[in-house]
Amino acid sequence: MSKGKVCLAYSGGLDTSVILAWLLDQGYEVVAFMANVGQEEDFDAAKEKALKIGACKFVCVDCREDFVKDILFPAVQVNAVYEDVYLLGTSLARPVIAKAQIDVAKQEGCFAVSHGCTGKGNDQIRFELSFYALKPDVKCITPWRMPEFFERFAGRKDLLDYAAQKGIPVAQTKAKPWSTDENQAHISYEAGILEDPDTTPPKDMWKLIVDPMDAPDQPQDLTIDFERGLPVKLTYTDNKTSKEVSVTKPLDVFLAASNLARANGVGRIDIVEDRYINLKSRGCYEQAPLTVLRKAHVDLEGLTLDKEVRQLRDSFVTPNYSRLIYNGSYFTPECEYIRSMIQPSQNSVNGTVRVRLYKGNVIILGRSTKTEKLYDPTESSMDELTGFLPTDTTGFIAIQAIRIKKYGESKKTKGEELTL
Amino acid sequence: MSKGKVCLAYSGGLDTSVILAWLLDQGYEVVAFMANVGQEEDFDAAKEKALKIGACKFVCVDCREDFVKDILFPAVQVNAVYEDVYLLGTSLARPVIAKAQIDVAKQEGCFAVSHGCTGKGNDQIRFELSFYALKPDVKCITPWRMPEFFERFAGRKDLLDYAAQKGIPVAQTKAKPWSTDENQAHISYEAGILEDPDTTPPKDMWKLIVDPMDAPDQPQDLTIDFERGLPVKLTYTDNKTSKEVSVTKPLDVFLAASNLARANGVGRIDIVEDRYINLKSRGCYEQAPLTVLRKAHVDLEGLTLDKEVRQLRDSFVTPNYSRLIYNGSYFTPECEYIRSMIQPSQNSVNGTVRVRLYKGNVIILGRSTKTEKLYDPTESSMDELTGFLPTDTTGFIAIQAIRIKKYGESKKTKGEELTL
Amino acid sequence: MSKGKVCLAYSGGLDTSVILAWLLDQGYEVVAFMANVGQEEDFDAAKEKALKIGACKFVCVDCREDFVKDILFPAVQVNAVYEDVYLLGTSLARPVIAKAQIDVAKQEGCFAVSHGCTGKGNDQIRFELSFYALKPDVKCITPWRMPEFFERFAGRKDLLDYAAQKGIPVAQTKAKPWSTDENQAHISYEAGILEDPDTTPPKDMWKLIVDPMDAPDQPQDLTIDFERGLPVKLTYTDNKTSKEVSVTKPLDVFLAASNLARANGVGRIDIVEDRYINLKSRGCYEQAPLTVLRKAHVDLEGLTLDKEVRQLRDSFVTPNYSRLIYNGSYFTPECEYIRSMIQPSQNSVNGTVRVRLYKGNVIILGRSTKTEKLYDPTESSMDELTGFLPTDTTGFIAIQAIRIKKYGESKKTKGEELTL
Amino acid sequence: MSKGKVCLAYSGGLDTSVILAWLLDQGYEVVAFMANVGQEEDFDAAKEKALKIGACKFVCVDCREDFVKDILFPAVQVNAVYEDVYLLGTSLARPVIAKAQIDVAKQEGCFAVSHGCTGKGNDQIRFELSFYALKPDVKCITPWRMPEFFERFAGRKDLLDYAAQKGIPVAQTKAKPWSTDENQAHISYEAGILEDPDTTPPKDMWKLIVDPMDAPDQPQDLTIDFERGLPVKLTYTDNKTSKEVSVTKPLDVFLAASNLARANGVGRIDIVEDRYINLKSRGCYEQAPLTVLRKAHVDLEGLTLDKEVRQLRDSFVTPNYSRLIYNGSYFTPECEYIRSMIQPSQNSVNGTVRVRLYKGNVIILGRSTKTEKLYDPTESSMDELTGFLPTDTTGFIAIQAIRIKKYGESKKTKGEELTL
Repeated sequence: MSKGKVCLAYSGGLDTSVILAWLLDQGYEVVAFMANVGQEEDFDAAKEKALKIGACKFVCVDCREDFVKDILFPAVQVNAVYEDVYLLGTSLARPVIAKAQIDVAKQEGCFAVSHGCTGKGNDQIRFELSFYALKPDVKCITPWRMPEFFERFAGRKDLLDYAAQKGIPVAQTKAKPWSTDENQAHISYEAGILEDPDTTPPKDMWKLIVDPMDAPDQPQDLTIDFERGLPVKLTYTDNKTSKEVSVTKPLDVFLAASNLARANGVGRIDIVEDRYINLKSRGCYEQAPLTVLRKAHVDLEGLTLDKEVRQLRDSFVTPNYSRLIYNGSYFTPECEYIRSMIQPSQNSVNGTVRVRLYKGNVIILGRSTKTEKLYDPTESSMDELTGFLPTDTTGFIAIQAIRIKKYGESKKTKGEELTL
Repeated sequence: MSKGKVCLAYSGGLDTSVILAWLLDQGYEVVAFMANVGQEEDFDAAKEKALKIGACKFVCVDCREDFVKDILFPAVQVNAVYEDVYLLGTSLARPVIAKAQIDVAKQEGCFAVSHGCTGKGNDQIRFELSFYALKPDVKCITPWRMPEFFERFAGRKDLLDYAAQKGIPVAQTKAKPWSTDENQAHISYEAGILEDPDTTPPKDMWKLIVDPMDAPDQPQDLTIDFERGLPVKLTYTDNKTSKEVSVTKPLDVFLAASNLARANGVGRIDIVEDRYINLKSRGCYEQAPLTVLRKAHVDLEGLTLDKEVRQLRDSFVTPNYSRLIYNGSYFTPECEYIRSMIQPSQNSVNGTVRVRLYKGNVIILGRSTKTEKLYDPTESSMDELTGFLPTDTTGFIAIQAIRIKKYGESKKTKGEELTL
Repeated sequence: MSKGKVCLAYSGGLDTSVILAWLLDQGYEVVAFMANVGQEEDFDAAKEKALKIGACKFVCVDCREDFVKDILFPAVQVNAVYEDVYLLGTSLARPVIAKAQIDVAKQEGCFAVSHGCTGKGNDQIRFELSFYALKPDVKCITPWRMPEFFERFAGRKDLLDYAAQKGIPVAQTKAKPWSTDENQAHISYEAGILEDPDTTPPKDMWKLIVDPMDAPDQPQDLTIDFERGLPVKLTYTDNKTSKEVSVTKPLDVFLAASNLARANGVGRIDIVEDRYINLKSRGCYEQAPLTVLRKAHVDLEGLTLDKEVRQLRDSFVTPNYSRLIYNGSYFTPECEYIRSMIQPSQNSVNGTVRVRLYKGNVIILGRSTKTEKLYDPTESSMDELTGFLPTDTTGFIAIQAIRIKKYGESKKTKGEELTL
Repeated sequence: MSKGKVCLAYSGGLDTSVILAWLLDQGYEVVAFMANVGQEEDFDAAKEKALKIGACKFVCVDCREDFVKDILFPAVQVNAVYEDVYLLGTSLARPVIAKAQIDVAKQEGCFAVSHGCTGKGNDQIRFELSFYALKPDVKCITPWRMPEFFERFAGRKDLLDYAAQKGIPVAQTKAKPWSTDENQAHISYEAGILEDPDTTPPKDMWKLIVDPMDAPDQPQDLTIDFERGLPVKLTYTDNKTSKEVSVTKPLDVFLAASNLARANGVGRIDIVEDRYINLKSRGCYEQAPLTVLRKAHVDLEGLTLDKEVRQLRDSFVTPNYSRLIYNGSYFTPECEYIRSMIQPSQNSVNGTVRVRLYKGNVIILGRSTKTEKLYDPTESSMDELTGFLPTDTTGFIAIQAIRIKKYGESKKTKGEELTL
């Protein structure tokens, strides 16, 4: 008799295929779940394989549009970034996938969910915290943290033996000496030979983005329109056809940014980062579309966002949102709170940015706005005397100087010299 | 009879030459002061011109080494950046220059200082707040904020007429349609045709950094060693001589980084920024050396800096230091306080970063450390079970989940659905 | 011929009466404006006096209810406090008054507004920044910053002479040796003999709150109900009638809290604070109602607010809102932004707090909630094993310890001892 | 044969006596360790009991002076407070005790340490994180998280039975219906009948501080001198002898503050707080000395600390230090970093505060400083025109207004009305 239904996040690879078979062995029925978040994947083959192994059902949810509209574009609005450079490509996909998986679990009457994440990474946390928020009574079956599983499958050979025994087909291609995770926003590479942080990644590791050294000699210009901080139109001239192309649907805008950035060598990084569970790890990422969109968005904020609003948002909302996303805390009270702070900062972020992509560079060519008036060239011009009087600045400085003069005098009184 | 001695920040250009003459007209004696902060300048010609106009003395102070050691390297340590992209090249030079000017004012017995900054910019504030801290009783004579001056010299023609009348030599080269400020860390371009933020700067505006499109096809690799966050050695192979070059003195390291970055198209930006006095202005900057050094430093912190220390420093010290520097508040109690927080964050930032420069890109090739042990490839490896048990993570997640489950349950109770 | 209409913030006192007459002398028509923000005031007498001096109209706006609902209750929600102890009584009234004054100015066709604030205080800034936001083209006539006024009226005698000359009636009571500002939230005392920060205020200075030493021996208990962080009901037993009294309208709740606190010696403070314009000043405040409501609100948040939401709100929203209010920046983009963050933090702040007032003390007797479940006595009980396993905590600690052990090891390796 | 030596944190109570006997049962030798942190305790009786049960050694370390100098006074300097009201009395003692315990463990050759903390509280974390930093290779034996222990001793009766069996003497006094933890800074009450957060604590629960309703009718005045933020002298008139008493040694100052505050009803709180492990719990605390010292220190900072330094310290150092202390993270890189920020903020905090204690109130009577000049009564006086010109403020406001006017205009253009 079945011990109940489990919804397993299935990838089609060796690990989750073994887990599928093992869960069946334990007496569970298994619904194999996949999310389409824009990764390169043979979904049909995965379906066939899951059913062949014994899944009672295979469900693939197309999350690509929700991913862009609900997650990726808000990340652009808030300029999300972790530890200076990582644009959170993997982390951002997790809430979308977890939500879809719980939806499937509910529809299919599963009492439990399962995944193939290891016990040392961030993803297990990102998935499980989301699961518990979305369905507090769900049970999480996490084989790589269960001694009866991880002790049995201590090495790759144990997995292969079990696969052979269960008749699970295994790809004949040799396993790459690193792990990857891909979605439409990025691909990550980690582990294996990358564990030495001084090893330069081999040229053939990089999959999505053209090597800057191989990118076209001709720059690619594009124009991005934003409304309330959201990219609403992307326009460019196709270098082959010389035709102007313009897209406006969120997914189309995102994919166009992705294609152009990938083709021009834009968006590779290589870092050592801090995992939520207090380990440092080395990761290489290709994050083409977010690199372009974020940079254009930051630039437009310079033109259209109030200085103090920007400073408050930068000092608090951006780093906290980024940290929470990285730590898998999307579905938490604090992230709901921080998310509520994104849109109110973006009301004035309306305008157009002209961008050039060239061999890895994102070069801002110019920006403009029809509706916002914060930038006033006349006023800031050194040659003009409108707006306020130079003597006003004298008063401004005098008020600041009250405190500063006391500081200088106090140093003098105490015999301390002010030095650089 | 003299109304007393004034120490004037003299540039050799039209504005400060007219100010010099005008101050003499007002009955002051004038000491012409220049700071060598690494800008391209004919100091001898400036001296000759100042004395010819009537300065009682000309003093040029070589600040290049102090600038690197006391200001630029700490800025690298703290990853200073204003509004996401501006590395503060002009702002960082101001405290050095102001300190040197006040030192000269004291030595020469000047009761006042003067400068040629306009009344709408940041620099007037940066200079004057520094002056007041360093010498609280100093008088600041600021012609461009004094009606008797700015009403008399309302246009460039008025300046030229006065110069002719006073026999002040004027350069025959046509004035560029923008203003610049240069030092060894950067050059800025603003005003003039740049006041339209949608005007792409002309190719011939950029002076210091090779256009990425004209940069060498062969990448330039270099290696930077850091001790306690300070760059202590820079090594590279000269592409012409094929010889390995290694420099260790702070100024040499800084200039080598500068030369390599300039030659490879690294460090140009174009932004609209928020001035301290609440105006937005457009600026283009060439910030070659800081771009390379900062990026390498950030990378090494990934390998060697504790996660929580980094997060605290990033969220507080870096943005506040950057803001204070931008706002000309170097010599203030709060900046002294914030500066005291830089070094204690850097004790573990020891190691080496390998960097590639290529047509505008700064690419990290790898990083290593001999002394720090925070990164442990075995421990973070997904394939290893050392360090802690996978079951520990289960406990970690369970503790986090206490709050999260309550959140999910509360939403359910209140009939609110959790959505993306 | 009139130079146009000016809306003057009129208090009925000597200063603004002189200003009124002086504005008329300058050729303006003057609309005398008063706001009723709950201060003790003879509005009829003020009206009569203004019209007698020559105001073309007198308008008094009753702002008491808006003040509570739009300003004071949100301040309670966000636990507003400046420099640890000041509950911002004066500052909070300023946006209400400024809004009412501009409304009157618009209705009456005034091109300008005027006030009697001095040139060294916060209030001038609070009023004028609000005026400029609410009516960007308004002209501010600020006599105490205009040399033609402040040089003419250099001392109190000059004001009295001018009043006599203009037939302005002057109160025969001797001026108190300090200044006050009163509204329903508080009264402030500053200047005069209080300028020596070591002078204890005389017992008879305090006007609104009973001296704790004279307060009743019998404590006063009350109960406050909150919904989404707003006080919605206040219940207490009248000590004289022994009848239970219950009020629910915002203004009634606020006034009941005020009366009870005042009667029981609650809410006096005496501080040296930092004005916006970089001066320190000494102020004594009686802030009875906010003291009680804020303390009860903070207590209820302990029971009902998520830990992380609270920490984020405390670290960012509360201090920034308080600073902006103090600095007169209510009508600014950044304060609009920060205000948008108050309500989303309060959704779960529902419940009841029982409070005891006794001779200056606000003692929490207990708190409860019917709707929120964050507090679960069973779960946190040391005697229960529900909710999570003790072994989970072991995992939680093990994950935290990864970083900590490395820290200890690194210290040991570097020969540095860990000390207190 | 012994399985090795364990250093057990021993209290003399039932729990740790049972643990001691149980550890012996498991084959360990046990060194019983106590720290004297100022709690009321019969150390001799505890020693006798431990040795009787079978400890191979009993070591009591007197930590009282270090506790004041290294921990409590810095907490006063930084105004440490958790969730608005809790002055961290228990948390602050933990690093001192853990350090002493590890020192004893090292001296006595113990491979492991043990404690009697439960698995749901903060203290287990505070101790163990400290242990791991101070001795990374130490083993922690935590019976209340070990199934073989907590399943065996599921109720108090099991403990009593085991005690009887082992001949462990048990106090005949009935156990109180709450738990306490005491040191010289405070006592905590939690659990038992306090688990209902709406239950007012019984009058006889409170042990250290006189009930405000029973406190003397005569107020107690005292004077505290601070140097660099540290209390260096406390002076008061003994109300019985009418003699002036003055103490200067850190421990004496602390105890005098404690005695006076306790006698005058100062320092009780009752809250629901957030534990580190994401549970809410209710605690009542008597925190007499810190209440007085912190309030006096905050007051003196108003007079002597630069506004911007204070704001930076308040927004960052104080909350982070408090959070880290609460979470048991004293011996961590981040706390070492934050601790380094305390002293540099205190250089100017020199002066004297006069304080009145009266039936639960701490009333500031006045403050003064001989060395600091930030407060200048003349300058801030509304009646004086020194220091800066009223017209300077006009310029200051004009510069602020640039942005504000644009905000008002933009709202108007977009048809949005500015409201309260």
